[in-house]
Amino acid sequence: MGFDGWVSESFDTVDIIRAKRDRQQLSSEQIAWTIDAYARGVIADEQMSALAMAILLNGMDRREISDWTAAMIASGERMDFSGLSRPTADKHSTGGVGDKITLPLAPLVAACGVAVPQLSGRGLGHTGGTLDKLESVPGWRADLSSAEMVRQLEEVGAVICAAGSGLAPADKRLYALRDVTGTVEAIPLIASSIMSKKIAEGTGALVLDVKVGSGAFMKDAEQAGELARTMVALGTDAGVRTVALLTDMSTPLGLTAGNALEVRESVEVLAGGGPDDVVELTLALAREMLAAAGVEDVDPADALADGRAMDAWRAMISAQGGDPDATLPVARESQVVTAGADGVLSRLDALQVGVAAWRLGAGRARKEDPVQAGAGVVLHAKPGDTVSAGQPLMTLHTDTPERFARALEALDGGWDIAPSGASSAPGPLVIERVAAG
Amino acid sequence: MGFDGWVSESFDTVDIIRAKRDRQQLSSEQIAWTIDAYARGVIADEQMSALAMAILLNGMDRREISDWTAAMIASGERMDFSGLSRPTADKHSTGGVGDKITLPLAPLVAACGVAVPQLSGRGLGHTGGTLDKLESVPGWRADLSSAEMVRQLEEVGAVICAAGSGLAPADKRLYALRDVTGTVEAIPLIASSIMSKKIAEGTGALVLDVKVGSGAFMKDAEQAGELARTMVALGTDAGVRTVALLTDMSTPLGLTAGNALEVRESVEVLAGGGPDDVVELTLALAREMLAAAGVEDVDPADALADGRAMDAWRAMISAQGGDPDATLPVARESQVVTAGADGVLSRLDALQVGVAAWRLGAGRARKEDPVQAGAGVVLHAKPGDTVSAGQPLMTLHTDTPERFARALEALDGGWDIAPSGASSAPGPLVIERVAAG
Repeated sequence: MGFDGWVSESFDTVDIIRAKRDRQQLSSEQIAWTIDAYARGVIADEQMSALAMAILLNGMDRREISDWTAAMIASGERMDFSGLSRPTADKHSTGGVGDKITLPLAPLVAACGVAVPQLSGRGLGHTGGTLDKLESVPGWRADLSSAEMVRQLEEVGAVICAAGSGLAPADKRLYALRDVTGTVEAIPLIASSIMSKKIAEGTGALVLDVKVGSGAFMKDAEQAGELARTMVALGTDAGVRTVALLTDMSTPLGLTAGNALEVRESVEVLAGGGPDDVVELTLALAREMLAAAGVEDVDPADALADGRAMDAWRAMISAQGGDPDATLPVARESQVVTAGADGVLSRLDALQVGVAAWRLGAGRARKEDPVQAGAGVVLHAKPGDTVSAGQPLMTLHTDTPERFARALEALDGGWDIAPSGASSAPGPLVIERVAAG
Repeated sequence: MGFDGWVSESFDTVDIIRAKRDRQQLSSEQIAWTIDAYARGVIADEQMSALAMAILLNGMDRREISDWTAAMIASGERMDFSGLSRPTADKHSTGGVGDKITLPLAPLVAACGVAVPQLSGRGLGHTGGTLDKLESVPGWRADLSSAEMVRQLEEVGAVICAAGSGLAPADKRLYALRDVTGTVEAIPLIASSIMSKKIAEGTGALVLDVKVGSGAFMKDAEQAGELARTMVALGTDAGVRTVALLTDMSTPLGLTAGNALEVRESVEVLAGGGPDDVVELTLALAREMLAAAGVEDVDPADALADGRAMDAWRAMISAQGGDPDATLPVARESQVVTAGADGVLSRLDALQVGVAAWRLGAGRARKEDPVQAGAGVVLHAKPGDTVSAGQPLMTLHTDTPERFARALEALDGGWDIAPSGASSAPGPLVIERVAAG
C-alpha cells in the first residue's frame, strides 16, 4: 500500500505501531509525525486504530501524552484571549446525569470578574449536552464567530457556544475512529482529547470536574483519579493553571435530567435557591476557577445571593439571541413513578435515570437525531430522603408517550428503599481535589 | 457509522473488540460471526486491525484459534483429494534463506507412493518463493485448474502450483491488513493463516518446517516452538495428521540462494549429490511425510539413490509445461567475495545472505515486481569450513551490476572467521520434533 506516488516520509507507520506494541516509548518526533501524517491521510484509519489499541493496552508516559496533545493542538487553530481586560478560566466536566453546572457556573464566575470562554458540545448517549440544554431557551443560538465570542467575553464576561471545527481537527477524526474500534477507554487518549481542545481554546485557567460512579464514564475512583492527574499534568505542561475535582456521579445531580428541565433548575440556583448539591458543586467549581485565575478576594456565594450572577446569566442569554424571560418548553405528557414501600431512599442510580431521560427524548443515539426540549426526569426524592409507599419518586416527561415503557424498563431496579432508621447518608459530593504536584 | 441501512446482526463489533481487549475469551459463535462479517464488509478494516492488535497483545486459547481457523476455511472453497488412489501429504515451511527443500522433496515423496498437492506462493522480502524458483525452468507454469491438479496428482504424484484465490479468502484480506498495521507477529494469527490454507487444501497429512534463527521469521526457538505446537494442535483438531520440525535457519540452507541457482542445486540432490544439509533436511521431512501418510516401509534415501525421485521430478516439471533438460538462466554479471583472514568460518548470517540475494534481484520488494531468474548468491564455504585469506567465500550473481554495491552493504559483518583450531562446529539442523500431544 502506498508504494505508488511514494513520497519520502520521516518515519514508517508500521515501525511506530510496532514500537508501541512492543512497549517502547515513542519519541517526540515520532508522535508529531504520527498526528500530522494521520491528518494528511498518510496514516490510514486501520493503522491508527491498531496504534490506538496498542496505546490502550501498553500506555503512554507523561512526556508522550504531552507530545500527543501538543500534536493534536498543532493540527488546527489556536484561540487567544490574552488581549481581554480580565483573566480567563474555563471548566470541563467529563459528563454526568443532571450535570447542568455549566449553566449557573459560567455567569457566576463572570459576575466575579473572570471571563469564561466555554466551548461546549451536544450530548450523545445518556449524558446531556450543554448546548442542547441552552437551545431549549427560545431564540438562543450556539454558533458564534470568533469575533462575536471575543466581544461577548469583553462585554458580558461569559460565553457558552459551539466549538468550531478548527480546534484540534485531528482529535475529532481520531475520536470518531476510537468510537467504532473499542479504543475509547484509553486514559492517555481521553486525556489528550479533552485537553487538546481546552488548551487550543486559549483559556488561562482550567478546572476539571471528573465524574466518578455509575452515571459517569469512569465507574471507579482509581481510574478517575488517574485521568484527573493525567489531565492536570497536561494542562500544567502547556502553561494552563489546571485543577481537577473528582465528584460523585452515583446519583443524579440536582432534581432534573433533561434540557429545559435543567435550565429551569439552573435559573433557580441563580435566583438563590435550587437543590443543595447543585449549589454546592457550582460554588466549589467557581472558587477553584477564581483561584486558578488569580482572583482571591471574591466569594461567589455573595454573587449568587445578591443577583449579580443572575444578571450575568440574563446578559449572556440575551447576547446570543435568547429571551431570558421566555417560557421554557414543557413536555406534552408525563407519568409519575411512586415508591413501593415506606423507608429511606438509600440508592438512586445515576446511569438508569440518565438512560431513562435519554429514552424519553432528552438525548440522542446518533449525532443527527433531534432532542426534545421538554423531555426528561424530575426527581421528587434524593438518596437520604424519607419516603412512604405510594409517594411520587419521580415524574417522567416526554412529547411521545410511547417512550414511557422503555424509560420505565431503564429504571427497573434503579433505586433501593431501606427501612427507616437504617444508616444511609450519601457520601461526599467532592471526593478529591487534584492539583499540579 | 453504519446506522443507515442497518441490518440486525448477531453481534456488535465493538463488543467483540472490547472483549478481547479486556482479555476475555471469544465464543465460537462470536468468532464465526467476526470472520463472516469481515468478509461481508460489516466489520471494517479499522475495526479488524484493532481486534488483531488486541489478539496480538492478549492472545487466544487453543479453542479460539481452532474456531478462528475454521471460520477462515469456511470463508472459501475446500479441496478434496480423498478420491485419489494414494494417500496425500504436504509440507509447509515458514520460510528461510536457500530453502529449496520443496523442489526435491515433492517428487521424492511422490516416488515413495504418497501424493503431494503442494500449493505455493511467490517470495516477498528476503526469503524466496517456490513458484519463483520453478518459473526459472523454461516453459514451466504455476497456474493449474483443479482438474489439472487432480490429474497430475494421479499420474505423476506431485504437483507444485499456485494457490487459487478461492482458499480462505478472508485470510488473504486479513493478512494484507496485518502487514500494514504491525499485527503480523501474532502467533494465533500466523498459525491460523498458515493452517487455514493447508487444511482447506485438503491434504491428509502435513509436515511443518518451522525455521528458527536470523534468516527466519521467528528469531528464537521458544517462539518458534509455540508456533509449531499451535499449528500441530490446529491440524490435529481439523483431522489432518500434523507434525512439525523446528530447523535451524541461522545460516543459509545449502550453497545457493536465488531462483535458478536453487533449482540447479535441487537437481543435484535429486541426482544423488548436493550439499549435506539439503539432503539431510529433505530426507528428514520425507520420512515424516511418509509416516504421517501411513507409509512405513519405504526408505526415501533409496528413491534418491536409484533415480526414482529424479524421474518423478522430470515428470512433474514436464506435466506443467517445463523442459527438465533445458539450460537454466544464468545471470550476466558476477562478483566474488573473498575471505579476509585464515581460519575457520564460524558464522555466516542467513538474513544477510538472504537480503543480499534479494537486492541482487532474486526477490521482490512488492508483489508486482519481477524477479531475475539468474540472480543470487553461491556460497563456497559454510560454517565449520576452513578458509584462507583471499579465498573466495561467495559469488554474487545479477543481471544488473549496479546492484552489487547494496548487496555488499547487506553482507557487511555477515560472517566471522575464527582462528584455526577454535571449536566452531555448527549446531544440529533439526532442533526439535513437535507431534500431537
